[in-house]
Amino acid sequence: MMKIALAQLNFYIGDFEQNTSRICEYIERAKSENADIVVFPELAVCGYPPRDFLEFNDFIARCQYALDTIAKNCVGIAAIIGCPTINPNIQGKPLYNSAVFLSEGNIVSTHHKALLPTYDVFDEYRYFEPGRTFHCITYKETKIALTICEDLWNIGNDPLYVVNPMDELLKEQPELIINIAASPFHYKQAEVRQSILQANVAKYKIPLIYVNHVGAQTELLFDGGSMVINAKGQCIKQLNFFTEDFSVVEPSLQAISNDASGLSSASSEAQRIHDALIMGIHDYFAKLGFQKAILGLSGGIDSALTLVLAAKALGADNVRAVLLPSQFSSQHSVDDAVELATNLGCQYDIIPIESAYQSLESTLQPYFKGTAFSIAEENLQARLRAVILMALSNKFGYILLNTSNKSEAAVGYGTLYGDMCGGISVLGDVYKTQVYELSRYINKDKIIIPENTINKPPSAELRPNQKDSDSLPDYDLLDKILFEYIENRMGPAELVQLGFDEKIVARVCRLVNTSEYKRYQTPPILRVSPKAFGMGRRLPIVARYLS
Amino acid sequence: MMKIALAQLNFYIGDFEQNTSRICEYIERAKSENADIVVFPELAVCGYPPRDFLEFNDFIARCQYALDTIAKNCVGIAAIIGCPTINPNIQGKPLYNSAVFLSEGNIVSTHHKALLPTYDVFDEYRYFEPGRTFHCITYKETKIALTICEDLWNIGNDPLYVVNPMDELLKEQPELIINIAASPFHYKQAEVRQSILQANVAKYKIPLIYVNHVGAQTELLFDGGSMVINAKGQCIKQLNFFTEDFSVVEPSLQAISNDASGLSSASSEAQRIHDALIMGIHDYFAKLGFQKAILGLSGGIDSALTLVLAAKALGADNVRAVLLPSQFSSQHSVDDAVELATNLGCQYDIIPIESAYQSLESTLQPYFKGTAFSIAEENLQARLRAVILMALSNKFGYILLNTSNKSEAAVGYGTLYGDMCGGISVLGDVYKTQVYELSRYINKDKIIIPENTINKPPSAELRPNQKDSDSLPDYDLLDKILFEYIENRMGPAELVQLGFDEKIVARVCRLVNTSEYKRYQTPPILRVSPKAFGMGRRLPIVARYLS
Repeated sequence: MMKIALAQLNFYIGDFEQNTSRICEYIERAKSENADIVVFPELAVCGYPPRDFLEFNDFIARCQYALDTIAKNCVGIAAIIGCPTINPNIQGKPLYNSAVFLSEGNIVSTHHKALLPTYDVFDEYRYFEPGRTFHCITYKETKIALTICEDLWNIGNDPLYVVNPMDELLKEQPELIINIAASPFHYKQAEVRQSILQANVAKYKIPLIYVNHVGAQTELLFDGGSMVINAKGQCIKQLNFFTEDFSVVEPSLQAISNDASGLSSASSEAQRIHDALIMGIHDYFAKLGFQKAILGLSGGIDSALTLVLAAKALGADNVRAVLLPSQFSSQHSVDDAVELATNLGCQYDIIPIESAYQSLESTLQPYFKGTAFSIAEENLQARLRAVILMALSNKFGYILLNTSNKSEAAVGYGTLYGDMCGGISVLGDVYKTQVYELSRYINKDKIIIPENTINKPPSAELRPNQKDSDSLPDYDLLDKILFEYIENRMGPAELVQLGFDEKIVARVCRLVNTSEYKRYQTPPILRVSPKAFGMGRRLPIVARYLS
Repeated sequence: MMKIALAQLNFYIGDFEQNTSRICEYIERAKSENADIVVFPELAVCGYPPRDFLEFNDFIARCQYALDTIAKNCVGIAAIIGCPTINPNIQGKPLYNSAVFLSEGNIVSTHHKALLPTYDVFDEYRYFEPGRTFHCITYKETKIALTICEDLWNIGNDPLYVVNPMDELLKEQPELIINIAASPFHYKQAEVRQSILQANVAKYKIPLIYVNHVGAQTELLFDGGSMVINAKGQCIKQLNFFTEDFSVVEPSLQAISNDASGLSSASSEAQRIHDALIMGIHDYFAKLGFQKAILGLSGGIDSALTLVLAAKALGADNVRAVLLPSQFSSQHSVDDAVELATNLGCQYDIIPIESAYQSLESTLQPYFKGTAFSIAEENLQARLRAVILMALSNKFGYILLNTSNKSEAAVGYGTLYGDMCGGISVLGDVYKTQVYELSRYINKDKIIIPENTINKPPSAELRPNQKDSDSLPDYDLLDKILFEYIENRMGPAELVQLGFDEKIVARVCRLVNTSEYKRYQTPPILRVSPKAFGMGRRLPIVARYLS
């Protein structure tokens, strides 16, 4: 059987010149390694997700031009690549999401994605008409069923679509399935993906080549993990996670061992999230052309973990920590923060906010006189910190990292335009209890995050002796309710049935729903769970449901 | 022929108790006015758009319960109402977007929307399976084709869908079309909507009843304008724009005059935007349970116009203007702002930011020493103003109004966490040139906005003698390019072909695309154009297209 190259690359959305030149480079490499065909991911030509750039005729024209250039480079080797193509019919959406088969300098055939994910972070029916006809490719006497990502996912007990493309393609008796994908990471996705692909092989009894994107596109983190499954359902090759990878494989080979589980389950959930977040930070900076990050280091666990991840992603030299103590900050907070920055070798500064706070207090005094210390004064501190961090960011070209966790973001325990600022939110999809797990994972070989940071009770330190537990249920309990409400969309009755207290449930649901206005204005969040705040969770700001 | 009641109401998303009780109240009213049937808008039971609340089983169960309650109230009268219903099939999305026919206490039949808008602000295929079977209702010996909003919109030369529900329904020879809708406002939509509806009547030659939502749902402004078109294509009744309305009509009637144009074109574009924004502000506050607004009043035209609109929406007593002059503010700015607040009778305060600015400057001095005055110091002023406004907002329960216009939002001419703050953006979908038009409209009978505010060159006043035109093309030119790029999705070559300078085009496109990260974090924007920033325009933050 023929040799197939899998090119798992990190693309730049809309950078046609660079994408095209890298694709052509990998076509050459595949040829030099005697591959018969090289496979690139879904919409590789323009990067994924191009979103509303797809509505610009100019963008589509550049896709077509790039595709023609790539086709001309396919001499002595064939290629399969994802590209938007124009729907020539009068009726329907103007584009298809296509897999294009290139050979001998030409576009030989074009195959349209039939199942268009339009849920969670996906908006594909916003742009694309579904493919309705199905035909295989024949290349070097092998009949190949060419499918795009979701096309293979309609195989469970609760199918989301009324057609199944592989059932149609099977009528032509293909010998191989190729699936080009843009399947973003979450901490369970590697298993889900592998089980879906193996279910296809089990059903259709032919080998499967799967080529995914890798690299971060703002919120969406593509973890790669491309793979080859032989006709027996054995995963005979899996490409690396979180880095570019390339491999030439014969899909008819046997597995070396009988282990059909592949390599994806080798890592723990904490390790995967850790690796994903580091890639997410790294690519956000690299793709925007920034080197340096800044963040407010409070002595608490969220900013500590964010700093460690940023130092790993960007290098300790490129991360600047700023301690911004107020009159309510405890000495241990400053000590813990300094200890961490020292452990990492990061630059840090201590910039007390007291004099700026007092100046604003006296500016506001004529209007506030006679009122008690309230949320206004608490938020004032958080906002002054943001003003200072953003001033340093603007002056020296840092991107400010947001350090809020998912539990806080969920219940609105944060100050808009204060600690909710930043270019990117590192932990906004990581619950507080997971923040602890990740911190322990970081410390597994040696203590980097001070133990005191991990062990002390969480506090925003915006008023004397404040503790998070003054206003919120304990995070162990809170996170369990949030997970069922956010990830599993359980309603109040269902939550009570799961054993949670009715009053606490009502309060948590209300906090989540009435904080929608805050989340609307916060930075993009690196997505690591199946249901992250951001593009994948869309709720009205003005509503009266459970609120 | 029978008498039909149109109930054009303002619903609260997720407030089943209130929605149900108002629906039942209007069923009673229709009965008391001898209507045979009363028609409510699309998804009236839960409000539109419910967005991801549709993914909560609890939410759907409440819809079903509300629908049953409403059905029980339909005795001696029939009703048609929109409600999500469960897809009983194994395959496909779990819900339908349905029109339900209620009579004699029962749910008589359910009709599913076939064309699911999934573009711009619409995400319907995210939730709903399209209807694939079509049947008419027969009630009081009249056969009625029941359709839902988009179902009638596939009638142009460039159809977006491969089916046309009315062509299918026509096979049963209906005598009347009823369309229940959730069709949001933009400044051209009234004409578009009427021409689409009249095209249907022209094609099918039967009368049409159209019932729309009214009221604001954060960004989306529903303008009502429900109507009845007789079989000759004459608009025999049009309900009010921007307010709730109710009417009982016999659709077979003749128009009193031969004017088939209806009432919608009677108002100018400026007047419509004016009315829409006032409704948008009013409902945002009313539905969140807030009375009072605060805003920074600079003496410039954007904050002036915002203040006038807010005073009209909330009452002058409920709007507080704060002047926040710095060392760079000119005396005329303060004078113009005071004059406006006085004209309106709004409370205003003058809170100079100089001492707070100097305090922060000395806090930052050890880090900034040796650097030149830069964007960091400019932004610092804007952010200090936001800190003061938000402190007042938090202390006294105001919602801060954002005053940025669409031209600024487009090119990123604004300070994140500074003047880009606010609970809702009033002018974020109004280009600067439209801001002038609206201001002239406001002043048409008597001068409310000082002429100096309208006539002086725009300036951010963040450094000495700064003018917007130092950094940006003149707004007349800028807005024309922005309109073609944003509303019409023209690419650089097309823009040059329209006669714009190539370098300016490249610069404007780059500014728009590289400002995506700023717009991601700004308040929801009241949508008045066919392409507003926000939920209807989704672009990657990290990309390299025209940037």
